[in-house]
Amino acid sequence: MPDLRFDPIRREWVAYATERNDRTFLPTDFCPLCPSGAGGASEVQLDTFEVVVFENRFPAFGPDRNSGRVVRPPSTGCEVVVYTPEHTMTLAQLPVDRVRLLIDVWADRYQELGARADVAYVYIFENKGEEIGVTLHHPHGQIYAMPFVPPFAAAELQAARDHRKSTGRCLHCDELSSELDGPRLLFADDSMAAFVPNAARWPYEVHVYPRRHVGSIGDLDAAERADLASALLRVAGTYDKHFGFSTPYVMAMHQAPTDGQTWPEAHLHVEFYPPHRRADRLKHLAGVELGAGTFVNDTKPEDTAAQLRRAARKRPETTPARTTGAAKTLN
Amino acid sequence: MPDLRFDPIRREWVAYATERNDRTFLPTDFCPLCPSGAGGASEVQLDTFEVVVFENRFPAFGPDRNSGRVVRPPSTGCEVVVYTPEHTMTLAQLPVDRVRLLIDVWADRYQELGARADVAYVYIFENKGEEIGVTLHHPHGQIYAMPFVPPFAAAELQAARDHRKSTGRCLHCDELSSELDGPRLLFADDSMAAFVPNAARWPYEVHVYPRRHVGSIGDLDAAERADLASALLRVAGTYDKHFGFSTPYVMAMHQAPTDGQTWPEAHLHVEFYPPHRRADRLKHLAGVELGAGTFVNDTKPEDTAAQLRRAARKRPETTPARTTGAAKTLN
Repeated sequence: MPDLRFDPIRREWVAYATERNDRTFLPTDFCPLCPSGAGGASEVQLDTFEVVVFENRFPAFGPDRNSGRVVRPPSTGCEVVVYTPEHTMTLAQLPVDRVRLLIDVWADRYQELGARADVAYVYIFENKGEEIGVTLHHPHGQIYAMPFVPPFAAAELQAARDHRKSTGRCLHCDELSSELDGPRLLFADDSMAAFVPNAARWPYEVHVYPRRHVGSIGDLDAAERADLASALLRVAGTYDKHFGFSTPYVMAMHQAPTDGQTWPEAHLHVEFYPPHRRADRLKHLAGVELGAGTFVNDTKPEDTAAQLRRAARKRPETTPARTTGAAKTLN
Repeated sequence: MPDLRFDPIRREWVAYATERNDRTFLPTDFCPLCPSGAGGASEVQLDTFEVVVFENRFPAFGPDRNSGRVVRPPSTGCEVVVYTPEHTMTLAQLPVDRVRLLIDVWADRYQELGARADVAYVYIFENKGEEIGVTLHHPHGQIYAMPFVPPFAAAELQAARDHRKSTGRCLHCDELSSELDGPRLLFADDSMAAFVPNAARWPYEVHVYPRRHVGSIGDLDAAERADLASALLRVAGTYDKHFGFSTPYVMAMHQAPTDGQTWPEAHLHVEFYPPHRRADRLKHLAGVELGAGTFVNDTKPEDTAAQLRRAARKRPETTPARTTGAAKTLN
């Protein structure tokens, strides 16, 4: 069972999950996320599925056992979301209606997990690629139902709250509006926009925003969900076209906490951080990022945005398939 | 020339240094940090030296050009500190008097750089090992003279300030005192103590503290400097003995800002973060750390402290030499 400790010096929670240190690591002969049929050996004992969600066997988070409250919910709230039964696919290669379904699944999990009294934040994310430390290649994302609002979300919400107090406006809406005609915009359609942020930490960081002021994935209407599906596909596909290989990334969703307070300042967005600073070089986090908390970015956001816009115009059939790791030996 | 941008959503500065993207990367036939004699090709045109400091040719930080002040100091304040002329050494293998000298050099640079009007924080650190993204193996550290107090230092100082206001005591002194007889202590001598913190983010994270309430490296007296030299050697050497190889790490020094304010709540300390969670596995930062700011640690601080205490008792001659990268082909 995972444990939490509070660091009084940085004033942050740290999660301990010691049984994870021996967790499944890039198995080469067996995929626990492939459908294995009734009575099968994988986590998904189905013949097939569209999108499937199950409890993570190696949860990083559980209920807060340090608060003194006796909370024993029926699950830890750490879930795995498998995007497709097809082992060698990636998010970028999924049909748009599958991604549209995935968004409904996220919205459902946000609402169901968020309704639990012990869940303050539903953190939806994807780790893709061995460079990110991914232990299973089958296309999947994760959901952590966290008993606190995590530091980056808390910092954003505090800044947005202060901005709202002093201007009456949404900080994210203001940022978005300044990006819409600017040199860092990748694309904007009726309801979504994607751009490299002005102060990007990662060389090819991209943020996807609903243009309407929407607090959470659950608040998106049907048209917005369809546009978000297209937008996520476009961003992930553009990376693949730009780098010429199936690009690893972290995809992180920031939205309104579910701690019972109201969060009118929250504005849903999805952030992508690929670890590459060039096709042949990774951005390593080192002393300045890890010990001081300040990012040094070796690229200029206007330049990477221009590169990604160029890549997006390439013919779609140039999108590379995933070629790393266990992909070749399975399915 | 590096540039800074302010992220209004996280309220942090991000540094841009685009010329760094093509910087020297693990040269295999030439070391720019080895002494090359008068007129030589390296950065150090000396026949030999003990510790040498020079300006980084690929600075990550410069003066704050976004503040509106016209500041053109004679240097960027990004310095490289070469620990020894011997290319294949590591900090852990240096004689104690060399590390003692290094501490005097750090104190000198803290005071000289900190005295500049444009320098708010002198950040002293070392990146060691290819796993950390190190581009030059010759033993060296770095100093960034930063025009702002970086986020992690700012968070610590704010917590210490609040604690001081509410209790009259130093937060770090309180933490230290609770570690001195505890299960996470590695060692304590007259003036220094080293421990795995209660809420360690990294599996083998170790903090080294002066036991006296001292704000900066410049405030240490002669006996404390000698003890700090021994303490740093003990920690770095213990990692090598524990893992059985020359262990990569980030070493980060946190101390009082130099922004002209007084910082009675600051308490100097040095933090080590090795990237290994086991001898054969790295801790990768992924979605939860990079997108939420929350660390998930797969080890228990009491366990790693016990492992490191056991390793420290091994015979010193078992300390492994550095065996990776360019080390074998040079010098």
